[in-house]
Amino acid sequence: MQNVYQKSLSLHKKLRGKIEIKLRTKIRNKNDLSLVYTPGVAEACRQIVKRSADIYKYTIKRNSVAVITDGTAVLGLGNIGPAAALPVMEGKCMLFKQFGGVDAYPICIDERDPKKFIKIVKAISVGFGGINLEDIGAPHCFEIERTLVNELDIPVFHDDQHGTAIVSLAGLINAHRVLDKDLKRARVVVCGAGAAGLTIAELLHDFGVKNILITDTRGIIYEGREHMDEEKIRIAKLTNPKMVYGNLSDALYGTNVFIGVSKGGIVTKEMIKKMDADAIVFAMANPDPEILPEDARAAGAYIIATGRSDYPNQINNVLGFPGIFRGALDKGIKKFTNDMFIHAAEALADCVKNPTAEKIIPEPFDMKAHKAVAKAI
Amino acid sequence: MQNVYQKSLSLHKKLRGKIEIKLRTKIRNKNDLSLVYTPGVAEACRQIVKRSADIYKYTIKRNSVAVITDGTAVLGLGNIGPAAALPVMEGKCMLFKQFGGVDAYPICIDERDPKKFIKIVKAISVGFGGINLEDIGAPHCFEIERTLVNELDIPVFHDDQHGTAIVSLAGLINAHRVLDKDLKRARVVVCGAGAAGLTIAELLHDFGVKNILITDTRGIIYEGREHMDEEKIRIAKLTNPKMVYGNLSDALYGTNVFIGVSKGGIVTKEMIKKMDADAIVFAMANPDPEILPEDARAAGAYIIATGRSDYPNQINNVLGFPGIFRGALDKGIKKFTNDMFIHAAEALADCVKNPTAEKIIPEPFDMKAHKAVAKAI
Repeated sequence: MQNVYQKSLSLHKKLRGKIEIKLRTKIRNKNDLSLVYTPGVAEACRQIVKRSADIYKYTIKRNSVAVITDGTAVLGLGNIGPAAALPVMEGKCMLFKQFGGVDAYPICIDERDPKKFIKIVKAISVGFGGINLEDIGAPHCFEIERTLVNELDIPVFHDDQHGTAIVSLAGLINAHRVLDKDLKRARVVVCGAGAAGLTIAELLHDFGVKNILITDTRGIIYEGREHMDEEKIRIAKLTNPKMVYGNLSDALYGTNVFIGVSKGGIVTKEMIKKMDADAIVFAMANPDPEILPEDARAAGAYIIATGRSDYPNQINNVLGFPGIFRGALDKGIKKFTNDMFIHAAEALADCVKNPTAEKIIPEPFDMKAHKAVAKAI
Repeated sequence: MQNVYQKSLSLHKKLRGKIEIKLRTKIRNKNDLSLVYTPGVAEACRQIVKRSADIYKYTIKRNSVAVITDGTAVLGLGNIGPAAALPVMEGKCMLFKQFGGVDAYPICIDERDPKKFIKIVKAISVGFGGINLEDIGAPHCFEIERTLVNELDIPVFHDDQHGTAIVSLAGLINAHRVLDKDLKRARVVVCGAGAAGLTIAELLHDFGVKNILITDTRGIIYEGREHMDEEKIRIAKLTNPKMVYGNLSDALYGTNVFIGVSKGGIVTKEMIKKMDADAIVFAMANPDPEILPEDARAAGAYIIATGRSDYPNQINNVLGFPGIFRGALDKGIKKFTNDMFIHAAEALADCVKNPTAEKIIPEPFDMKAHKAVAKAI
């Protein structure tokens, strides 16, 4: 893994910016100039004044998404701030274009207060057809996303929450197909109660999974426990009404699905051995998974997925967001719902014709998968 | 002029967005993906955490400019709001790329309060190498620009102010060369005390022009007059210390330069006749100039310029901003000064080898002019 960092840095140094602006029509002479700019452009402005929806007819808004971060939870790097987050946001914008044909632009915002952050995003949302929130830490991300979803008339998506949840659900659907089991009857442990963990748990719950326990560093979350925040309480009430308590090891006893979105190396072989036979282990912490696939397998896990590209079954968000926004922009979707996300996950799962233990999820370069997501949303 | 609007609208309808995002390197396979995005991208982030200036080495910041508006003073359309301003901002971004190789992105901000507007721009400036303010009405534009110039470490430019001033100054320099007169000894009337007028007057003052009167709808501005705002007072003290008063017609008596950045049709032949022989008339109101060139000529004006492309001598901002930001980004300029703007105007004037009454300013498609501005700044 060492080398990929040095190679990537060299590439960044060579490119000095991974995206650029391209004109969609040529300006060859004064006549062209008078059409794309003054005086002709005034007419498009006048039309939008008359009918505000016409902004979708005449401008980039119909295909533009802002990739917005405050830099508080970037990759495995944590709270590195908005400036250092820019390379990631640029990369994200590349993927939007490559896999979804969406014109995404990175906006790094130097504001940590969620209420002020929300105001800024609302004020600059005018020219965008959608908002992709990225790498914003919990618990602020929940307030930010919920408020923006409610108050904006364009779709808002926090990829670290919903993107991860959609692709994880797709993987789980196929893992259960491989085992010929019913996902709705699965007993699931979600390890990590941050942005991704809580949202995965909620989406699984809405999908129909009855039995979900979520753990954080203090063990299983339940209403009334210490060190709970608003969002943990909301999801714990939903998924753990019986207020089961205990540590991660306790939680895993007799379960058949482990979903890790926490920290590298925190799961031992012994813990996996407590799970049912043919366990499904999604150890998605990056770059180091909660348990290495070879160790999970040795401990009896049957289907293993990670967030890494060097193992089979990479649970990769890139399978989600490009198609999700492609579909939303094409269909004029104003708000995403968990129902839409479940449809997207099912469509993604269906793209793997004959799922096996080593192949539960499409490849990122499978354009059919992106199109299926866009169609399903 | 009717037809250009309909043609432009058709083009806007066909394109549905005049700019798009382009990848600067291909993503062909998983290996590419690991370099432009996770996990490799983390290394560029880590470098920026270590040394904040490295953001210029690894990201789009080194070539990116935000084209920012609140939509309060758009073209001749006025206060149409940030959404309806988007077609203009997109057009501006095209010109940045075409003539300056600058990657500009439009940000329309739904906020009218200048203090809040400033906070938003500061917060989102992280990923940009420069800020081009656009079509923000006076007097807010002065407070906004001044505060951002002081508080940001990237160059900030309000094109309606400084762009117009630079290109006007370039035209005046050549007009005086044609007449073999000394611009510094000119007697100038600036008609219009908004963003453009006050800034043109200040730049002329800094260039060395001693004799400048500025008029608004109530006549010549001077300290102590009614209906003055902070910026009018500041510039009036600079240019009119003797507190000359009177109406536009009074102001024009015996002068040799008229600069109009006000409203169509407000100058009569009789007014022009009051000016000295061989008067210079820049009637730049758009789309209708303060006086039509044919009428100005009939009244004795010798050199006439407008803001329109269908007359000779178009004072077109596009000759300014692309080169100005190209130079600023290449040289790492953190703040623009009037000195830089004067150098740019002189360089622009020098691009016309043999100025005549009909040719005092380069054509927008003269790439040498853009390069000369970039070099001079």
